[in-house]
Amino acid sequence: MTRLFSTLLLSCLAATAGADPLPSWNDTDNKDRIISFVETVTDPQAADYVTPAERIAVFDNDGTLWGEQPVYFQLIFAMDRLAELAQDDPSILTSDTLKAAAAGNLEAVGKGGTGAILEVVNASHSGTSVGAFQQVVADWLAKARHPDTGLPYDRMTYQPMVELLRYLRDEGFKTYIVSGGGLHFMRVFAEDAYGIPPEQILGSYADSSYEMIDGTPTIVKSPGIAFIDDKAGKPVNIERTIGRRPIFAGGNSDGDFAMLEWATAGDGPRLGLIVHHTDGAREYAYDRDSPIGRLNDGLDRGPDLGWVIVDMAKDWNRIYTGAR
Amino acid sequence: MTRLFSTLLLSCLAATAGADPLPSWNDTDNKDRIISFVETVTDPQAADYVTPAERIAVFDNDGTLWGEQPVYFQLIFAMDRLAELAQDDPSILTSDTLKAAAAGNLEAVGKGGTGAILEVVNASHSGTSVGAFQQVVADWLAKARHPDTGLPYDRMTYQPMVELLRYLRDEGFKTYIVSGGGLHFMRVFAEDAYGIPPEQILGSYADSSYEMIDGTPTIVKSPGIAFIDDKAGKPVNIERTIGRRPIFAGGNSDGDFAMLEWATAGDGPRLGLIVHHTDGAREYAYDRDSPIGRLNDGLDRGPDLGWVIVDMAKDWNRIYTGAR
Repeated sequence: MTRLFSTLLLSCLAATAGADPLPSWNDTDNKDRIISFVETVTDPQAADYVTPAERIAVFDNDGTLWGEQPVYFQLIFAMDRLAELAQDDPSILTSDTLKAAAAGNLEAVGKGGTGAILEVVNASHSGTSVGAFQQVVADWLAKARHPDTGLPYDRMTYQPMVELLRYLRDEGFKTYIVSGGGLHFMRVFAEDAYGIPPEQILGSYADSSYEMIDGTPTIVKSPGIAFIDDKAGKPVNIERTIGRRPIFAGGNSDGDFAMLEWATAGDGPRLGLIVHHTDGAREYAYDRDSPIGRLNDGLDRGPDLGWVIVDMAKDWNRIYTGAR
Repeated sequence: MTRLFSTLLLSCLAATAGADPLPSWNDTDNKDRIISFVETVTDPQAADYVTPAERIAVFDNDGTLWGEQPVYFQLIFAMDRLAELAQDDPSILTSDTLKAAAAGNLEAVGKGGTGAILEVVNASHSGTSVGAFQQVVADWLAKARHPDTGLPYDRMTYQPMVELLRYLRDEGFKTYIVSGGGLHFMRVFAEDAYGIPPEQILGSYADSSYEMIDGTPTIVKSPGIAFIDDKAGKPVNIERTIGRRPIFAGGNSDGDFAMLEWATAGDGPRLGLIVHHTDGAREYAYDRDSPIGRLNDGLDRGPDLGWVIVDMAKDWNRIYTGAR
C-alpha cells in the first residue's frame, strides 16, 4: 500500500515536472526567456535567487490581460449604463458626448479622446454604493457581448497570459493587476478570470465616502476621478500600495512604460514584458498610431532595456480564453 | 522508525493544540471571547465558518499595537529629524511651532494639536526619495530611546497584541495595519515588529512623484499630506486597498470608531476590539480627556455593539515586548 502510494506520488511529480506551464505559448525565444527567468529566480542555488516575499509580478489589464479594441471594455459598459440611466432620466445627457455615448456611438465617443472617456465614466459610475455598482457591473458582464467576437467580455482574456499568471503563482510569485481601468470595475471579474483577489488589484478610482444609510454603514462612490493609475501613476501607486519593487512587470502601451522602467531598473534579476498586438487575423493589429493602447516607447526602447516584446501572431497559438 | 516518527509527530501536535496562543493575556472573559471567535470562524463544521480568503483582520497602530504617549512616536521622530535638518539650515524653522519642535519642546508642540503635528511632519518628511527617508527612520529607530521607559520605540510594541497578530495568522487570517501614522514610517519596522509585510500596511501618506534622478528611476516624497488615514478615512482606505470587509478590527481611539463600526456591521460573525488604556502603573491611563488617543465613542457605544473592551490593567499580564 505504501509502496503503491509512493509510486503514484512519484509518477505524479514527474508528470508535473515535465508538463509545459505555458501550453498556449509557441516554443519561441520569448517563451524560453520567460521560463528561464522564472527558473533562475526560484532556484535556491542560483546567484540570482529571489525570496518568495520579493517575487512581485505586476500586469496592466487592458490590452495586456484582456482585449481593449475597438475601445476599452469599461467604456462600453459606461455607455450601456448611461443609456440605461437615461431611460429613467434623459436630462442626465447634458452634452453631445453623453448623448452620443447613450446612443451607442462608439466612433463619436472615441474621437473625443481621454476627455470624452472620463466624461462618460463620470456620468455613469458614481452616486451608488460600491456594492450596488459592482452588482450592476456583474449583471452587465453576464449579458453583454463584444461587437466583433460575440464573446462575453470576461471570456476575452488572453489565454497565454492567464497561463503566465498561474505559472508565476505556482512558482511563488504574488500577481497583481496595475491598470488604468477602474478598481471597482475590475474587482468584479478579476478573481474568476485571472485568479487575482481584490487586494491585489490596483486601478484608477473615484473618492469614496463613508455614510450611514438607513442605519447601515456604507461606502459610497463619489463623482469625479481621484486617481488615474496610468503612466508615472503606476509606479507611484505600486510603491504606495505594495511597498515593494516588482521583479516582473507586463504591459502593452506607453501607459505602462514607467511601470516597466521602474521595475526593471532595480538590482538583481528583473523581467519586463510588452504584449505587442501584431495579429490582425485573430485579434487586432495596432501600436504606434492607435488611439487606444498606443505603443511607441516600449517598441523604441524596450529591446535595449532587455524587455521581452511578445509578438502575438508568432508567440501565441491561442488568443482568447473563451475561444479556441 | 516510522512508528517513532508518528509518535513524535502526534505528541508534537498535541502539545501545539494544548498550548496557550495568548500567554500574555490573563484568563478573563475577554480572552475567552477572542479565542471563541477565532475557533468558531475557523471551524469548517460551524455555521459561522469563514473561508480563509475572507479572514481579514485590521488593526490601528498607535495606542493599539504600540505606545503613543506622551505623544505619537512618529512626532518625536519628526522633531528629532527637524532638529537635525535645522543644524544644516536654521532658516527652515519658519514658525514658533517648528522652533519649539526642533528644540524638543514636546509640551509646546502637543498644545498645538493636529495642526502643529502636521506642520512638524510636513517640514521633516518630504523632499527625499522614499528609500532615503526610510533609511533615516531606520537610523533613528536604532538610536532613539523613549523618554519615560528608556526603551527603543520598536520594543514598545504590546506583547499581548503581537501574540494576537501571530495567533490570527496561525489561524489563517491576513493581518493588516490601518493607521493614521505614516505609511512609509511604519513600513520600516512593522515586518520585524509585527510580522506584517509592507503590502499589508495602510496609513497616511504624502503624494509621491516618479522622477529620473541621475539616470535612476526614483519615487520621491512630495510635500504636504495627501491622505489622512483616520476616522471615516479608515473604512474608505480599507475598501479601496483591500476590497474586502474585515471580520476582525482592533483600535483604541475615536479615530478607529468608523473602522470598527463598518467591520462589525457586516453579515456573519464579526469581532471589534478596543484597547482601553487603564494601566497607569505599567503604562499610561487615559481615555476621554487625552489629547492623544482620545476615546469616547468606543466606551459609550462599543459594549452595545458587542465589542471587546480590553482592560489593559486586568487583561494583560505583560505590556511591552521589550520589557517584562
